[in-house]
Amino acid sequence: MAQNQGRASIIFDRPPRIIGAASIVGEKEGEGPLGHLFDCIEKDPKFGKDTWEEAESELQLRTARKAMEKSGMNEEQLRYLFAGDLLAQGIATSYGIMELQIPLFGLYGACSTCGESLSLAAMAVGGGFADCAMALTSSHFASAEREFRFPLEYAGQRPLSTTWTVTGAGGFVLAAGDSAAASQAHVQIGGITTGKIVDYGVKDSMHMGAAMAPAAADTIFQHLKDTGREVSDYDCILTGDLGSIGQTILKDLLFDQGIDLQNRHDDCGILIFDPEKQDTHAGGSGCGCAATVLAAYVLPRIERGEWQRVLFVPTGALLSKVSFNEGQSIPGIAHAVVLERC
Amino acid sequence: MAQNQGRASIIFDRPPRIIGAASIVGEKEGEGPLGHLFDCIEKDPKFGKDTWEEAESELQLRTARKAMEKSGMNEEQLRYLFAGDLLAQGIATSYGIMELQIPLFGLYGACSTCGESLSLAAMAVGGGFADCAMALTSSHFASAEREFRFPLEYAGQRPLSTTWTVTGAGGFVLAAGDSAAASQAHVQIGGITTGKIVDYGVKDSMHMGAAMAPAAADTIFQHLKDTGREVSDYDCILTGDLGSIGQTILKDLLFDQGIDLQNRHDDCGILIFDPEKQDTHAGGSGCGCAATVLAAYVLPRIERGEWQRVLFVPTGALLSKVSFNEGQSIPGIAHAVVLERC
Repeated sequence: MAQNQGRASIIFDRPPRIIGAASIVGEKEGEGPLGHLFDCIEKDPKFGKDTWEEAESELQLRTARKAMEKSGMNEEQLRYLFAGDLLAQGIATSYGIMELQIPLFGLYGACSTCGESLSLAAMAVGGGFADCAMALTSSHFASAEREFRFPLEYAGQRPLSTTWTVTGAGGFVLAAGDSAAASQAHVQIGGITTGKIVDYGVKDSMHMGAAMAPAAADTIFQHLKDTGREVSDYDCILTGDLGSIGQTILKDLLFDQGIDLQNRHDDCGILIFDPEKQDTHAGGSGCGCAATVLAAYVLPRIERGEWQRVLFVPTGALLSKVSFNEGQSIPGIAHAVVLERC
Repeated sequence: MAQNQGRASIIFDRPPRIIGAASIVGEKEGEGPLGHLFDCIEKDPKFGKDTWEEAESELQLRTARKAMEKSGMNEEQLRYLFAGDLLAQGIATSYGIMELQIPLFGLYGACSTCGESLSLAAMAVGGGFADCAMALTSSHFASAEREFRFPLEYAGQRPLSTTWTVTGAGGFVLAAGDSAAASQAHVQIGGITTGKIVDYGVKDSMHMGAAMAPAAADTIFQHLKDTGREVSDYDCILTGDLGSIGQTILKDLLFDQGIDLQNRHDDCGILIFDPEKQDTHAGGSGCGCAATVLAAYVLPRIERGEWQRVLFVPTGALLSKVSFNEGQSIPGIAHAVVLERC
C-alpha cells in the first residue's frame, strides 16, 4: 500500500486526494492580504454565541459543513473525522462537531494539528479503511489568549516577537485516489513525514516562533533525508506559523545542516497578516492559521497548476499554562504533508 | 486490506498483534485486587519529580520503556507513537516521551484515549504504514484532580458517585501479524469501532459514569449492528471506567435497545479497586485505568486461553474546567477494540 521511507516518512502508493476544502475566518483575517480568498468572513467574533469557546465550536462546525458542501459529501459519507484545536481537552472540537455524529479521532498537536489530522486521514484513506474522511482544525484569537496567556480584558502588552492567533478554521475532505468522488480533484497527498518532539529550551510563550523553528527544521531535514529529495523538488516549503523571526531561525538552522531553503520557503503566519497595517507583530499563528491558508491559498495555487508540489509543514508549540507556570520549556513538533498536483 | 463494516467498524484482514504490553501504577492501585498483576508499583506518588505533571510524564516514559523491553523493540524500531493523557494540551505525553525521539501522533479522547491510540496504531500497522507502533496512555490521580476538580490541598468532599482517577500508564507495542516479531504473540486486534460524541446533558463532574455510559452504549450497539455479532460472541465486553453506577446505566440503556449484556460485562474501573477497603466510591477512572487493566489483566487472560475474544471499550468524558465553569454539559465518547486469541 505504501513505501515506508527512512525514519519517519511514507510515500503513498495510492495517494488520497483532497476533494474539497473550506476556510472560515474572523474579521481581522478578512482584512489581511489573503482576505479575498477565504470562503467566509464572520464579522461577529463570538459567532453568535455567548463565550469564546462556544464561538470556536461554532466556527469549526460551520467550516465542517462548508467543506462537506464543497466536496459534495454528507455526514453519512464521511467515515471518520480527525479533528482538534488548541484548547484544553480539545473542547472546541468536542462541542463543535457533536451534532455531525461522525466517528471521531480527537487530536492534539498544538498548531501542527492540521498536519497531524491530514496525515492520519491520509493513512486511513490510503490504507483502505475509509472511502472518505475529513481533517478539521480551528483556533480563535480570544479563546487562545485566555488559554495560554491572559484574558483580553487584562489588555496585556504584546512584545514584538509575539504572533497573533488566527481566528479561523480549515476543513479538508479526503477520498481514495481511484474513487469516483476524487475524479475531479487535482491535489493529492503524496506522502507524509511525522515529526518528533524537539526542545531547544525556549521558555518564552511570547516567542513561539523560536520554540517551533527547531522542530520545523528537524522535520524538513528528516523529510529530505528520508525521501532523497532536494529543496528544489518543491515549488514551496510552507511552514505553519513560525512568523518572521521563526523563519530566520529556521533558515539558519537548516543552513547549518547544509540545506539552503533559498527563496522557496514561506510561512502561513507571514502570509495571512500585514504586520505594518494590522499590528500583528511577528505574524499569525494557531491551528487555524495553517489550515485556512492551506484551504484558501495553497490548494488553489496547486489546482491552477502554478505549483506542482508543495511541502506543507504545520508547526506546533507543546505548552500549557500549567507547564508554563511550572517553569517548563516549550517543546515543538512539526508534521509535513506532501501536496502534489494530479 | 480490511473490510469496512456498517457505519463505524473495521474488521482487519491482516490483524495486527500486540507483541508486548506494560503497566506501571501507583501505590493505591498496587493495593487493589489486581495489585499482583502490574509490572511495577511505584510507592512515590511524585515518581522522583517535583510536580504532579512531571510525575505523570515520568510514569509514561517508564511505561514506554517497559513496553519496549517486554516486546524486544527499541526506539528505532518503533515507527510511530500514538499517545495521550488527560491533562490540558497533553503535557504528560509531550514532556514524558520527548527523549524517546519517536515520531508522535498526540491524541485526546479523555479516558477513551487508550482505545483511540490502539485503533490508530492498528490502522497504521494493518495498513502497512508501520512494521511496529506503540499505543501509550497515562493518568495520575493528583494531576487529574487539579486539572478537572480541585487541588488536593482543598481536601474537597467526594460524593459517592465519584470515581478515583487511577495513577497508572499502559503501553502496547503492535506489529504486523505476519512479521517475525509477532510470531510469538497470542493476541490480535481483530477490528475496531470508532465512537462518535454522545451527550445526554449530564453536567456533574463528580458523576462521570453517568456522562459516559450513553457513549459506551452507543459504541457497543453500533459494533454489534455493524458486525452482525451477538453479545455471546464475546467472552467479555469490558468498558473503561464507568464504575458501578455507570455500569447499571449502561446495562439499562442497552436493555432498552434489546441487548442484554447478561453476565458478560465488566468494567476496568470496577476491577481495579476494592470500594469497601479503598474508599474509592464508584470505582477507578482515567486513561490509565483501562490501559493498566488491559495490560495486566485482560491480555494475559486471552494469552492463557481463558478468553477467546473480548470487546474492549474505553470510555471518555469530554469536559474541561473551562467548559464546566461555563455551564456546559459533559459529552462522552467510547472507542471499541476487538481483542482475539491467535
